[in-house]
Amino acid sequence: MQIGFIGLGIMGRPMALNLKAAGHELFIPERPSLTPELRAAATVCADAAAVAGRSEVVITMVPDTPDVEQVLFGPRGVAEGLRKDSLLIDMSSISPIATRGFAARIEAAGGQWLDAPVSGGEVGARNASLTIMVGGAAAAFARARPLFEAMGRNITHVGEAPGAGQVCKVANQIIVALNIQAVAEALTFARKAGADPAAVRQALMGGFASSRILEVHAERMLNRSFAPGFRIRLHQKDLNLALGSARDMGMALPNTAIAQQMFSAVAAQGGADLDHSALVQAIETLAGLGT
Amino acid sequence: MQIGFIGLGIMGRPMALNLKAAGHELFIPERPSLTPELRAAATVCADAAAVAGRSEVVITMVPDTPDVEQVLFGPRGVAEGLRKDSLLIDMSSISPIATRGFAARIEAAGGQWLDAPVSGGEVGARNASLTIMVGGAAAAFARARPLFEAMGRNITHVGEAPGAGQVCKVANQIIVALNIQAVAEALTFARKAGADPAAVRQALMGGFASSRILEVHAERMLNRSFAPGFRIRLHQKDLNLALGSARDMGMALPNTAIAQQMFSAVAAQGGADLDHSALVQAIETLAGLGT
Repeated sequence: MQIGFIGLGIMGRPMALNLKAAGHELFIPERPSLTPELRAAATVCADAAAVAGRSEVVITMVPDTPDVEQVLFGPRGVAEGLRKDSLLIDMSSISPIATRGFAARIEAAGGQWLDAPVSGGEVGARNASLTIMVGGAAAAFARARPLFEAMGRNITHVGEAPGAGQVCKVANQIIVALNIQAVAEALTFARKAGADPAAVRQALMGGFASSRILEVHAERMLNRSFAPGFRIRLHQKDLNLALGSARDMGMALPNTAIAQQMFSAVAAQGGADLDHSALVQAIETLAGLGT
Repeated sequence: MQIGFIGLGIMGRPMALNLKAAGHELFIPERPSLTPELRAAATVCADAAAVAGRSEVVITMVPDTPDVEQVLFGPRGVAEGLRKDSLLIDMSSISPIATRGFAARIEAAGGQWLDAPVSGGEVGARNASLTIMVGGAAAAFARARPLFEAMGRNITHVGEAPGAGQVCKVANQIIVALNIQAVAEALTFARKAGADPAAVRQALMGGFASSRILEVHAERMLNRSFAPGFRIRLHQKDLNLALGSARDMGMALPNTAIAQQMFSAVAAQGGADLDHSALVQAIETLAGLGT
């Protein structure tokens, strides 16, 4: 397939190269930062509109909501070059609410829409083992499936409504943050009470308190190994999407709001680029414990 | 072994009968409520002091901290009859801080102390599959191990300090409550955004958001099946232990405090005897959704 790929950062670069390795033809916009490997693997076009003009499917993988808007609808953006019946797949993690508007504009221009945010990080992008959460029409999902299979493993069509993929990604980030804070409050309580938090964790594994976070992130807290992993800075962005969307829709997310404050407290101490399990440092401060 | 068992309610009754089935001799205090099965299985004594006078090991399994204090140190309580070198095992779920004081008084009277709260509910008590979290001296733990093995499966000696078992139980209840609220906020967010919460749950299983709560309690939320299970009323008691101990020790547990408020909000609507997964109803109210 002829695939345009826009947003060739830490995640996008290996994802694009996995598509190339699966036999697809790549079109990418000119950037000074393009690596020789990418230039060899793809046809370099002048801009996003030119990329869209050459592609059946255009994939975007950029940092945040305004970046998607810019690359789709800004000057010489995708919308200016989009071919009739082209499929736009936004794999960025952005606002579910804004996504609905972007989808409507792409569909009004004659294109198809999927939102397909991922989890699994840089390692998942390189190993083609990403989890991919997809929103949009079933026909578009069927069309895109071979592409998703070249980039990921756990691929779910969450719903036909545009934005369903982004909703699912936000839900994932809410649970991960709150499970981290759950483990942080419990282990800090144990430490403050003079018990051995490692023994407590061991006793809780396998019971109703068990979670992937109790396995992985609790161990990071115990070993004080806060090299990312997934950076607090990025989780702050994701909880910002959760809290902003919640406000727009008219609903409260009390523990998500508190978790965001805990991330901000760790960031205030210079920890924004630590792994998100370092949230425990904020709880330790609230317990009068050294971190 | 000669075992005194005090507190023969929903949990204590099957636990005592499992000890009897494992070949131990049971001594219990007279109560009008004793079932014929218990009267047949045990020697009925006049009161707790008399039970202690006949037993090498005395087990208590009563509702809350003041009940343990009463049964141990009240008039004709265990302390009045305790034999030299007897082992007292408190299997109730009570305050870790108060436990330290009780242990000191039992040890001053020449007895040994273990705190050994359980999780696994009535089903676990009947099937002898309880999780048992034990605090106290290693020698006492070794002495009690065959008894624990007659009542439970996942048995951990958390630490030598009295109260370590209670600390672990509280940590468990913190994580379970906060993981329930995590799933409740995420699935309510999805529902409010018009996505299918069941599809979202399915997409998240197996990833970093996965937990025993996402498996079991999320399904109860989706099916609106809130028959207990574990009652909100009991989880409120356990979070009260968490928050009270935290205040006594001088530490804050922000999300635990919020979860307790959510349980109170469900209880305010008449839901105190629903399963704790009904916490989602409070989040739905905060989202302006019918429950």
